[in-house]
Amino acid sequence: MNYRIIFYIVGWVFNLQAIFMVLPCLTAVIYGETDLGAFLVSIVICLAVGLPLTNKKPQNKVFYIKDGCIAVALSWIVLSITGAIPFILSGAIPHPIDAIFETVSGFTTTGSSILTDVEILPKSVLFWRSFTHWIGGMGVLVFLLSLLPLAGGYHMNLMRAESPGPSVSKLVPKVQSTAKILYTIYLGMTVLQIILLLLGGVPVFDSLCITFGSAGTGGFGIKNDSMASYSTYCQVVTTVFIILFGVNFSAYYLILTKKFKQAFKLEEVRYYFGIILASVILIAVNTRHMFSGFAEAFQQSAFQVGSIITTTGYSSTDFNQWPALSKTILVLLMFVGACAGSTGGGIKVSRVVLLCKAARKEFQLYLHPNAVKKLKMDNKAVSHETLRSTNIFLSVYLLIFCGSILIVSLDNFDLVTNFTAVAATLNNIGPGLEVAGPMGNFSSFSYLSKSVMIFDMLAGRLEIFPLLLLFFKDTWKKF
Amino acid sequence: MNYRIIFYIVGWVFNLQAIFMVLPCLTAVIYGETDLGAFLVSIVICLAVGLPLTNKKPQNKVFYIKDGCIAVALSWIVLSITGAIPFILSGAIPHPIDAIFETVSGFTTTGSSILTDVEILPKSVLFWRSFTHWIGGMGVLVFLLSLLPLAGGYHMNLMRAESPGPSVSKLVPKVQSTAKILYTIYLGMTVLQIILLLLGGVPVFDSLCITFGSAGTGGFGIKNDSMASYSTYCQVVTTVFIILFGVNFSAYYLILTKKFKQAFKLEEVRYYFGIILASVILIAVNTRHMFSGFAEAFQQSAFQVGSIITTTGYSSTDFNQWPALSKTILVLLMFVGACAGSTGGGIKVSRVVLLCKAARKEFQLYLHPNAVKKLKMDNKAVSHETLRSTNIFLSVYLLIFCGSILIVSLDNFDLVTNFTAVAATLNNIGPGLEVAGPMGNFSSFSYLSKSVMIFDMLAGRLEIFPLLLLFFKDTWKKF
Repeated sequence: MNYRIIFYIVGWVFNLQAIFMVLPCLTAVIYGETDLGAFLVSIVICLAVGLPLTNKKPQNKVFYIKDGCIAVALSWIVLSITGAIPFILSGAIPHPIDAIFETVSGFTTTGSSILTDVEILPKSVLFWRSFTHWIGGMGVLVFLLSLLPLAGGYHMNLMRAESPGPSVSKLVPKVQSTAKILYTIYLGMTVLQIILLLLGGVPVFDSLCITFGSAGTGGFGIKNDSMASYSTYCQVVTTVFIILFGVNFSAYYLILTKKFKQAFKLEEVRYYFGIILASVILIAVNTRHMFSGFAEAFQQSAFQVGSIITTTGYSSTDFNQWPALSKTILVLLMFVGACAGSTGGGIKVSRVVLLCKAARKEFQLYLHPNAVKKLKMDNKAVSHETLRSTNIFLSVYLLIFCGSILIVSLDNFDLVTNFTAVAATLNNIGPGLEVAGPMGNFSSFSYLSKSVMIFDMLAGRLEIFPLLLLFFKDTWKKF
Repeated sequence: MNYRIIFYIVGWVFNLQAIFMVLPCLTAVIYGETDLGAFLVSIVICLAVGLPLTNKKPQNKVFYIKDGCIAVALSWIVLSITGAIPFILSGAIPHPIDAIFETVSGFTTTGSSILTDVEILPKSVLFWRSFTHWIGGMGVLVFLLSLLPLAGGYHMNLMRAESPGPSVSKLVPKVQSTAKILYTIYLGMTVLQIILLLLGGVPVFDSLCITFGSAGTGGFGIKNDSMASYSTYCQVVTTVFIILFGVNFSAYYLILTKKFKQAFKLEEVRYYFGIILASVILIAVNTRHMFSGFAEAFQQSAFQVGSIITTTGYSSTDFNQWPALSKTILVLLMFVGACAGSTGGGIKVSRVVLLCKAARKEFQLYLHPNAVKKLKMDNKAVSHETLRSTNIFLSVYLLIFCGSILIVSLDNFDLVTNFTAVAATLNNIGPGLEVAGPMGNFSSFSYLSKSVMIFDMLAGRLEIFPLLLLFFKDTWKKF
């Protein structure tokens, strides 16, 4: 293991965290809030650790996929802990586990909250809470890559460990350029949503926070009723953008480089929109009687479907009250998740499509035992490795899911609460059903359950393997 | 496709069904019940179709795995439909969908019932209902193989399609001898349980029916409270036997041939007992306050765990009232299921173990990308095909599960009812939770939901692929 580079990268994460916290400081200054101190102290702590670690550039450039995973996992743990400091110091969330839960929920773009009343929080704290979504959405290491001239071959291994989806495609040959392009698209769409919200008369602070939550597909609201009290215009704009942020960013790159045909042929994106459309129509028909007409039912179900499939988790209505079919569709969408290479979580549409295609192929093998057919995605053969790791991802995912439910069930809530609370955190969605439903929150779970869900949120965001590697004895052996 | 052989085999299934129905006829005679007529008519119908089909032995012996699957799937559909005739004719279950649901539930050894009061049924009907479990447990085609001198190479393809588990191992080189050995062990254990129950003072009729339900891991009770009103002795004997019937029958063959060491080293069997022991202890501790002492809690949880993991589905107490942890463990056990090569259902312990081992291997690949390690089970390398089809089994299984829940949720029951009702039928268990719980039944579901569950029960018993092949256009194409 190349500890020097790992420490160097983690050190930069400390520094970056300090830089990120300048924004809530500004917010505190603008609104004249006394929480400025909490953020300043946090910045000093981050720099006190970060600067010494990044003092000297490491010489040894040998950096394997294992080192990449460990660097990413440690970076996210550092983000979670340092990010929680302002919550504790400002007194907004006094208990460390609660504060870390909220921070992890932010950076992993989950959006599950242990707060029962967010409206009493200072603006600077609310800003930081929403801003963590934006940072976590595209990934901190990707951000680091786009800024730092880290020469050497370890870019790809970092990006592979942090990026969601069964396989990572570089948009351009250089990883650093890929990271820059991704962040440019991300920033551009963010600015566009802010402008559209402002045009609709949404206040500046609200526009910023709503957009951070949409862009990172996070879902922290700054109102107790999430998005329910905003205008239909604001809800529609948000619906459109959360769905767009769930699209594989390769599609945008193809569009930017005028390869429209290729962009519209991306299989994952087509299935993604197909699933959304089918779900919205089914739910709209199923819930029509609960709204003034089909148009409102359609708008509300589009908001909810977009919010859940992209794992954002904003809610515009209490879908816990919806009929069983609609709730079931939402629960299933929780698992499907958004596209790979987007800011959304879940199993990812491409994995689901791959698994279905593999099943289809298996049937054909029964019929024609000697036919050799390759699995294809976007007309390219899928490598054996990708398929295998997708299959194994599903198994490990289910194992973690079952283990988590068992521990959480010790709190003795009903089965739907436990099942959907774990589903909502492991898939980085936010709200579940019943106790953890859109109008509820995670405050009543025990600290044991909260710790399990902190693990689940991180595992979900990092797609399990990098985080789990930390717990393998072999990882820490010397070779 | 070799239609001639398929028709020949299906014809034999008609004949066998007629032979099986002689037993309930005898019951009707013994108890002087008027339902004798219903069974006699059913026998005539079966023979009227079966005898002409088996009149001439087919000459063409070419028989692929595809033909095996289709023969098995059609045979099970024939069993389900002809088996329902006595229920309809006797007036015990007038509606055809209900009657087929009950019959499929019997043959697939599920044990889910649409009957609200079984105690008013005639003895002959109750006998037939329980006897279907015994027939379905070891498999009708395996029975056929052990009787019929079907020369030709198609034995293995039939057995592979009907036997549960990721890979079929012949106990002895000849498939027909394997089938005979399996049925001998099955019959021997059945007789043993009947004797032990009789010794405990259980009436003859009850002993027979309870044993049929245990041996087939079916779970139809002949009392409305399932097994709750029987003595502790009877419950303990049943606990031991249902757990034994969930063991891979290879273990018994090894014991019979005095290969004790090999028998006790079978990995699947060790994991099976390990899972049972861990679950029983956890549930006993968790439910202790609900019983007079730890001993009773242990006995009750052992009964329930054995009943659920082997997918039998007898209940001795209303576990719907148990705390969340215990209920969660039971729901997870529903999916694990019994050993491959036993009469139990579910995903099967060996598949779960395989998936865990594959996950472990994947982690090691992260750490040592160039190390080539083979997955091993019982110290033998697992073939790539077995692993792939296990992975794909899991995907297809989840797809069917999700699709079924969606349709069943149209009935607008709560999510736990829908989830566990589908889990209970797809895994051939019997009871679920809430509406479909141990003290409830499946009568309140719509006919659409019942049809979906009929499909799920058959898919679960035949391990999905043979049944699904029927719905593939390619299957019916001429080549």
